[in-house]
Amino acid sequence: MFATMGALGLAPTAEAAAAEPAFTAPRASDFTLTGKAAAKVVVVGGGIAGLTAAYELGKAGYDCTVLEAADRTGGRNLTVRGGDTVVDTHGVRQTARFSDGHYMNTGPARIPQWMITLDYCRELGVPLEAFTNVNASAYVHTSRTASDGPVRFRTAKADVYGYVSELLAKATDKGALDKELTAADRERLLEFLRGFGDIGGRVAGDPAKSWRYTGSTRRGYRRDPGAAGTPGTVLGPVPSVSDVLASGVGRAFAFEFGYDQAMMMYQPVGGMDRIPRALTRAVGERRVRTGAVVTRITDKADRVTVTYTHQGSTRTLDADYCIAALPPNILARVPHNLGGAVQSALEACAPDSAAKLGLEYRSRWWEDDHRIYGGITNTDLDVGVIWYPSYAFHADRGVVIGYYNFGRDADAYGKLAPKERERRAVAQGVKIHGAKYRTELSSSFSQHWRLMPHVEAAWHSLEGGPDAARYAALNQAAGRVYFAGDYLSHTIAWQHGAFSSARKVVGEVHRRVLRG
Amino acid sequence: MFATMGALGLAPTAEAAAAEPAFTAPRASDFTLTGKAAAKVVVVGGGIAGLTAAYELGKAGYDCTVLEAADRTGGRNLTVRGGDTVVDTHGVRQTARFSDGHYMNTGPARIPQWMITLDYCRELGVPLEAFTNVNASAYVHTSRTASDGPVRFRTAKADVYGYVSELLAKATDKGALDKELTAADRERLLEFLRGFGDIGGRVAGDPAKSWRYTGSTRRGYRRDPGAAGTPGTVLGPVPSVSDVLASGVGRAFAFEFGYDQAMMMYQPVGGMDRIPRALTRAVGERRVRTGAVVTRITDKADRVTVTYTHQGSTRTLDADYCIAALPPNILARVPHNLGGAVQSALEACAPDSAAKLGLEYRSRWWEDDHRIYGGITNTDLDVGVIWYPSYAFHADRGVVIGYYNFGRDADAYGKLAPKERERRAVAQGVKIHGAKYRTELSSSFSQHWRLMPHVEAAWHSLEGGPDAARYAALNQAAGRVYFAGDYLSHTIAWQHGAFSSARKVVGEVHRRVLRG
Repeated sequence: MFATMGALGLAPTAEAAAAEPAFTAPRASDFTLTGKAAAKVVVVGGGIAGLTAAYELGKAGYDCTVLEAADRTGGRNLTVRGGDTVVDTHGVRQTARFSDGHYMNTGPARIPQWMITLDYCRELGVPLEAFTNVNASAYVHTSRTASDGPVRFRTAKADVYGYVSELLAKATDKGALDKELTAADRERLLEFLRGFGDIGGRVAGDPAKSWRYTGSTRRGYRRDPGAAGTPGTVLGPVPSVSDVLASGVGRAFAFEFGYDQAMMMYQPVGGMDRIPRALTRAVGERRVRTGAVVTRITDKADRVTVTYTHQGSTRTLDADYCIAALPPNILARVPHNLGGAVQSALEACAPDSAAKLGLEYRSRWWEDDHRIYGGITNTDLDVGVIWYPSYAFHADRGVVIGYYNFGRDADAYGKLAPKERERRAVAQGVKIHGAKYRTELSSSFSQHWRLMPHVEAAWHSLEGGPDAARYAALNQAAGRVYFAGDYLSHTIAWQHGAFSSARKVVGEVHRRVLRG
Repeated sequence: MFATMGALGLAPTAEAAAAEPAFTAPRASDFTLTGKAAAKVVVVGGGIAGLTAAYELGKAGYDCTVLEAADRTGGRNLTVRGGDTVVDTHGVRQTARFSDGHYMNTGPARIPQWMITLDYCRELGVPLEAFTNVNASAYVHTSRTASDGPVRFRTAKADVYGYVSELLAKATDKGALDKELTAADRERLLEFLRGFGDIGGRVAGDPAKSWRYTGSTRRGYRRDPGAAGTPGTVLGPVPSVSDVLASGVGRAFAFEFGYDQAMMMYQPVGGMDRIPRALTRAVGERRVRTGAVVTRITDKADRVTVTYTHQGSTRTLDADYCIAALPPNILARVPHNLGGAVQSALEACAPDSAAKLGLEYRSRWWEDDHRIYGGITNTDLDVGVIWYPSYAFHADRGVVIGYYNFGRDADAYGKLAPKERERRAVAQGVKIHGAKYRTELSSSFSQHWRLMPHVEAAWHSLEGGPDAARYAALNQAAGRVYFAGDYLSHTIAWQHGAFSSARKVVGEVHRRVLRG
């Protein structure tokens, strides 16, 4: 029966659940009896894709060198802690002043259960903790209507699900869906809706009074239930269906239904950069050259020559193969002889904007006063979303993400000096959280990925996706040069994409070497 | 504007959010200039209510002694680790063989954000981590129909929300709800439903093809998206609306909408008993007498005398006041002179059954094979729910809760010998998880609260709630004796109820002493 369900696609079996494209890491034993040997590979770019390529090839004894332009590996996987300095492409310098043990993940910050990022955490011994992507106690902030403001997710959901259930039950019961539903379907649907919306039942002879949503303890309490004599006071009054629909709170729910955003989600304990740090250690520090800015890639008949600057000198590195694992917008500016199709494809990868602001507070007022332990507040303000930290609960201090926004909103903040970004974002957050959002602030750090040297993009938009014809030249070798990165995957902007793309290229290189 | 919203009840302000019934702990300085002094109090029962009463009174210098019948404090807050032994009321002995670092919380196991349990964790320095109460990757198991079996929460939700949205959109668009909704409401509702259900839009002139749910990436993937060339395969085929309704999967969703069960939820790092351990330390070990079984409570004009047995001897303790913080079903069997109304009220507290089984596995197959990191699988089998551990992700081993069930189901398992409980529950779990649910099992431990000495109840049902007239005698002092416990609260079966009830009684005792 279990097997049948799997075949029907209703019950993903363990096998189906693990159906990540098969990948077997190269092994030294693969060369046994082949007369071949592991090759020399230069990896350009020490982000997740580049580190992974070097790591996986290293398992079979490939002689890999990673050239990373920045002074650290990880690429967009950047965790900022107290003392860390970033100088942006305009020369604006920020040094974070976060307290010990507190940090912000300026790039990737959450990991869904199905992504192979977790497999690398397991393999590399990176401990995990929950990432609080959804929280019924966080707010949905709307400013569409006269009665705008923040409302708890739980309250918004109770009202929207309540009215949706009432309306569908009424329509069903009056026969409006008799073409779509059998009599048995209708009774089952009505039973489901009573529980789903916490609505009343059928009132015989009175359709108007039937199936009504009149509020629910799910909305939350104004005064919590406690000891005998203190039953609590449910939050009220309940807004009308028109008010609920006009407020637009319903926009916030579907986010968590997505395959990539549904809870549970996870993060490494101590910061997302535990992953590139562990990868770098596994590759071997001596194989990783930071501060190495590549200035030319030349594909030759029998080798690849990569030219780069390092500590003021120009150097060259010859290798059998090159894996170009740097952002396509950066690679597009590196002189090469890989052909016009490659160059056109690189230029067709459009860099996107995203920005984050970390706000350190000298108290955890969101826990103490708002009873919000982690999670995300959804706004229709220019800050996008506000994240409460998923670690160090009940500590003295904590870092809130004051904005995580994209496109135009991110660019608007990016144009401001760091102090002005803070001022603008804090003014927005005060609307939701009150005065402590300003008065308890201790320091801030803001990151705009379009302004980050050697990256200059949060991620990339590929028209038609990475399999579109215009990107064909990047999905195969250009001579001895291979391309890897999350942009060449179906999960752009996720580390999973970088891991997957690196694995693909590692397999291609290894098979070519084995073929000889 | 913010203030206005708070007044409307739409936006709970920080003030409203923190509107837990006010409690100020007694302080030594309260006695200044009163001529009064802290009294001597005997607390019967060292569970959460009793420990909290002693802890809070201790802050003002009360001389408290806690008499606990078991050999440890905590009551139903019992975390079982390797080496722990429980002998049930039938004399059946179990010793847990869980590995180091692995445990099961046999009683309370999750803490909602609003409950004062978290305030005690903060005050007592008990570190927290997320409790994974909801997980889109866990299963809903149904056995109603021919095509029964497990389906992922995410898949079940995608289908149910999809069809609910399609049906409501169709009814709305054909005018069936024109009495309930304005034209503006209707357009907003349709816009919302498109996103909520991931359904198609209006097809001009073809109502049957409009607003259709035809599946969604939200269902999950049979083959996950990866690198270029690997777009992934969405799980399919999509069952019909009739099949979805008949399967009954929709029953599983509303659980997480409740005020007490909505995510985020939390647990102490290392086991729930970190709370009573910290409380016991704060009270002072020397004030806590374990193995002290109370045999009589006598209220006198000027004091209370409590008789108990300890290490084979009968002893008595005189105090100014007594706080009876033991389960009402146990207290009902202790001879006392507190009157018939007290006795009737105690006997009207009906003990309920609940049971848990911990299964230690020698691998974390639920993570490795099923990609389930924490969360709860909902079944319509006699095991109730199955919990995956919220800690030690990626460890070598782990403890799954193989059943958490109530009433008849719990009693059916309770009648079996421990090995038979395991056998029966494992056979159920195999239906959902496959063979490893049996082959990877290393040991088990089962707890049935009706069979637990000195407790004999998971919790209690009070007809009409704790404020009903029949319980009035327990909600006030009987002479010098006060009653406390979660059963005398509006959150029965939650530690919050025990904390709240203890606080109420502490306030009453302290005010009485100050009055003199």
